[in-house]
Amino acid sequence: MSEIIGHNYIGGARSAAGTITLHSHDAGSGEPLPFVFTQATPEEVGAAAQAAAAAYPLFRTLSASRRAEFLEAIAAQLDALGDDFVTLVTRETALPSARIQGERARTSGQLRLFAQVLRRGDFYGARIDRALPERQPLPRVDLRQYRIGVGPVAVFGASNFPLAFSTAGGDTAAALAAGCPVVFKAHSGHMATAERVADAIIRAAEQTDMPKGVFNMIYGAGVGEALVKHPAIQAVGFTGSLAGGRALCDMAAARPQPIPVFAEMSSINPVLVLPEALQVRGENIASELAASVVQGCGQFCTNPGLVIGIRSPRFCAFTALLSTLINEQPAQTMLNAGTLRSYRNGVQALLDHPGISHLAGKVQQGNQAQPQLFKAEVRLLLNGDPLLQEEVFGPTTVIVEVADPAELQQAVQALQGQLSATLIAEAGDLQSHAALLPLLEQKVGRVLFNGYPTGVEVADAMVHGGPYPATSDARGTSVGSLAIERFLRPVCYQNCPDALLPEALQNANPLAINRLVDGTSQRAAL
Amino acid sequence: MSEIIGHNYIGGARSAAGTITLHSHDAGSGEPLPFVFTQATPEEVGAAAQAAAAAYPLFRTLSASRRAEFLEAIAAQLDALGDDFVTLVTRETALPSARIQGERARTSGQLRLFAQVLRRGDFYGARIDRALPERQPLPRVDLRQYRIGVGPVAVFGASNFPLAFSTAGGDTAAALAAGCPVVFKAHSGHMATAERVADAIIRAAEQTDMPKGVFNMIYGAGVGEALVKHPAIQAVGFTGSLAGGRALCDMAAARPQPIPVFAEMSSINPVLVLPEALQVRGENIASELAASVVQGCGQFCTNPGLVIGIRSPRFCAFTALLSTLINEQPAQTMLNAGTLRSYRNGVQALLDHPGISHLAGKVQQGNQAQPQLFKAEVRLLLNGDPLLQEEVFGPTTVIVEVADPAELQQAVQALQGQLSATLIAEAGDLQSHAALLPLLEQKVGRVLFNGYPTGVEVADAMVHGGPYPATSDARGTSVGSLAIERFLRPVCYQNCPDALLPEALQNANPLAINRLVDGTSQRAAL
Repeated sequence: MSEIIGHNYIGGARSAAGTITLHSHDAGSGEPLPFVFTQATPEEVGAAAQAAAAAYPLFRTLSASRRAEFLEAIAAQLDALGDDFVTLVTRETALPSARIQGERARTSGQLRLFAQVLRRGDFYGARIDRALPERQPLPRVDLRQYRIGVGPVAVFGASNFPLAFSTAGGDTAAALAAGCPVVFKAHSGHMATAERVADAIIRAAEQTDMPKGVFNMIYGAGVGEALVKHPAIQAVGFTGSLAGGRALCDMAAARPQPIPVFAEMSSINPVLVLPEALQVRGENIASELAASVVQGCGQFCTNPGLVIGIRSPRFCAFTALLSTLINEQPAQTMLNAGTLRSYRNGVQALLDHPGISHLAGKVQQGNQAQPQLFKAEVRLLLNGDPLLQEEVFGPTTVIVEVADPAELQQAVQALQGQLSATLIAEAGDLQSHAALLPLLEQKVGRVLFNGYPTGVEVADAMVHGGPYPATSDARGTSVGSLAIERFLRPVCYQNCPDALLPEALQNANPLAINRLVDGTSQRAAL
Repeated sequence: MSEIIGHNYIGGARSAAGTITLHSHDAGSGEPLPFVFTQATPEEVGAAAQAAAAAYPLFRTLSASRRAEFLEAIAAQLDALGDDFVTLVTRETALPSARIQGERARTSGQLRLFAQVLRRGDFYGARIDRALPERQPLPRVDLRQYRIGVGPVAVFGASNFPLAFSTAGGDTAAALAAGCPVVFKAHSGHMATAERVADAIIRAAEQTDMPKGVFNMIYGAGVGEALVKHPAIQAVGFTGSLAGGRALCDMAAARPQPIPVFAEMSSINPVLVLPEALQVRGENIASELAASVVQGCGQFCTNPGLVIGIRSPRFCAFTALLSTLINEQPAQTMLNAGTLRSYRNGVQALLDHPGISHLAGKVQQGNQAQPQLFKAEVRLLLNGDPLLQEEVFGPTTVIVEVADPAELQQAVQALQGQLSATLIAEAGDLQSHAALLPLLEQKVGRVLFNGYPTGVEVADAMVHGGPYPATSDARGTSVGSLAIERFLRPVCYQNCPDALLPEALQNANPLAINRLVDGTSQRAAL
């Protein structure tokens, strides 16, 4: 195992000018691990942003295939990390090693998907309108458009995916793919993991001859504010809490030059259990749902936090069964003490609410999270009670019983923006509740049929996004190849000599990419 | 000519609940025109936003071809407006009738371009990843993604393009194409024009059976704030001043639910005149540039406000000739008294600056704008003097002479974000100044070669955008078909039965559109 020195990564070198030191902790015992990390000074935060800015002109103009090689080299470096690495991650996060191995495969797979996107070339969004010198009343100039990276990107990872949504996770991969150097703020919950991954990225950068400063990482509490406010930073990717994400959005909007923030924040991921499905397979649904609620100790952005059904003897039986199943689920260790504290507070708030009753779950005490099941009166949802709109991060879900299909429609209408919504439904259900679908589409980034929202496939067609407060900008996704678009902007060339055009726009189409030429999608040379 | 009654357009009806009345003015004489407009009350602003929200569920789910028919009907209605309409616009704006006729053709052409985009179907961004039930270690679900309109859009038009950037202008066309109902804030500078255009839109909406509330328009000062803050509004399009645009951005960012604002604001559109070009055709460049500076009284977002050249006897002669030409240009009437006042203040600020000398132009007095030419010391640019970064809206430009190619590079580096930059250059210039091009690309939305930035073609490949302060979000364009993307967001379907999918994603591909299927762009049925 390579040594963990805990210095900041700035422009290809390590730096520890500050005096504030931080420790990483064993998530199981809460004990500090034997690694010391030095918080970045304000000057080091600025230097990291400047290093990214210095790398930008060269990095963004590297060919897409060079950037693809870089991403693939990172993937290979990640895959090559030994068992000691997996052990380290499990110690910092209390996540089981099989999960970490799976998450690593997902993370390297994600990097390879972006390499494919780069080679495919559709991210360029190449468009060509050729000159029409004879057009009346005025000739048309030659216009050619493609997309370039917006500039250095600040990335804030999440605690719950120490690999896939962290140092070399989706936001970093998307930004690098777009040609944007990255300054990553190491998550305090897994700083040693972050260091091992940053080392892997730096090795890959050296191996593929990337400019120094293409990837930088800083440690510390409160350094994120200075990072987001730094004038060199041109966009922000964030995964975490609503409060944290909103604070970054507000800072970014108040800059002399406002910049976009793509924050993935809070979602309760409603699951609608419809009558025919209950009738056909109610018991299966209850056991699948219980498993989904407690999977990974409920520490997923897409954890099902709200279950809605129509009042009936069957739904009553379903609720009873789900209660039994939740009572049977063992307590689990959470990612860290802060996460457990938040969970305890969230559960307590549900317990304290007069309109919410506790159906199942052991008393929340000790150093593990106890799975819980609640039931809320539908009026809370209809009246926009904040307790039913904000996620309780952990293995808890809330059942809401509506009177009839009309009230179901109203309940869905009352929801805020969500990452996902799920329909557990038979064909007959979908026919008799057809009006639900367009409404759900307005509320969420992803509509699932007869599945569970945990488990977000990394693919071209995935949307891990949705209206506020699920994210700060519904037009983006933080999982899947579309994520690259958040960090690209279009540039147009007017009457540019062919030799000076970027390859994506040259007549000969040397990259052999699809382009929109005079309104027609084609791959031909001109 | 249809009667102008000056009532607000709300949900397909007219409403004038308020008591504050407004007048439109003859731009030439400054006299009020015989039309009275009733400012929308706060309740009416809310009702307009609600009407748009009520229209959204139906409008967004109409087939793209139905929306295309609506846009084409608006275009036809605009084209059918008589000479009296053109006369009215010229009275309110002092723009010549040939210009208004040309601008109308541009506006209806723009609507027709978006109709084409709708029929082409690439705006859907359809992506399909089919299920892989045999995949190891886990099967892949079926994922399908397309894009939907974000919701009701508030649009604020510009004074300088009373048709193309106003009531039925690019932002309105893009929003309607995306499936987003519009609430338009009528520009105070051409309220009668706005009413005639709104009537045309409403006729088209009725003719094509669009939902009431698909287009709404409100009159008044200060009503914009309430509109942007209304919870039903999901995005904003704006063309105007930096101060105005930034104020809207700040309001939108401070909402409980922040929303994106696409504001096209301030650009000085630098023109770089390189040595060989000066040698070969210096006189032509001077006369073309003078014409571009005074065209339309300089009232263009893309007016060339900064001319940069390398010190030489030839650049000196060029400057002298440009001075002579600017001195020969007649005064022109501006859009309105406020525009003239701003111009006078802007010119005075340049006159008052000790680092800026006045090269040409008559004393700015009376009720017309006098073309002006200034020369600024390069250190102002290098030191970020705000006077050289903010546009003076009107027929004025500033020359900056740099010492050598290195200082030229520094001067470009010192520029803020711009809508456009122009290279006036021969082949040899482009070779010896090759480093300029990537730098310009980082600064602007459009790089022109041997043309002038005024005249923004409406096309698929156009970018009328750029880094702040040119716009509030460099990832958008407000001219050209890419403008639709600002108002779309992706939605993903997971394991959705084929019959329930939107047509764009069904196996049979009934719309016959291009789709990214398992990573390959194709038009085939599945």
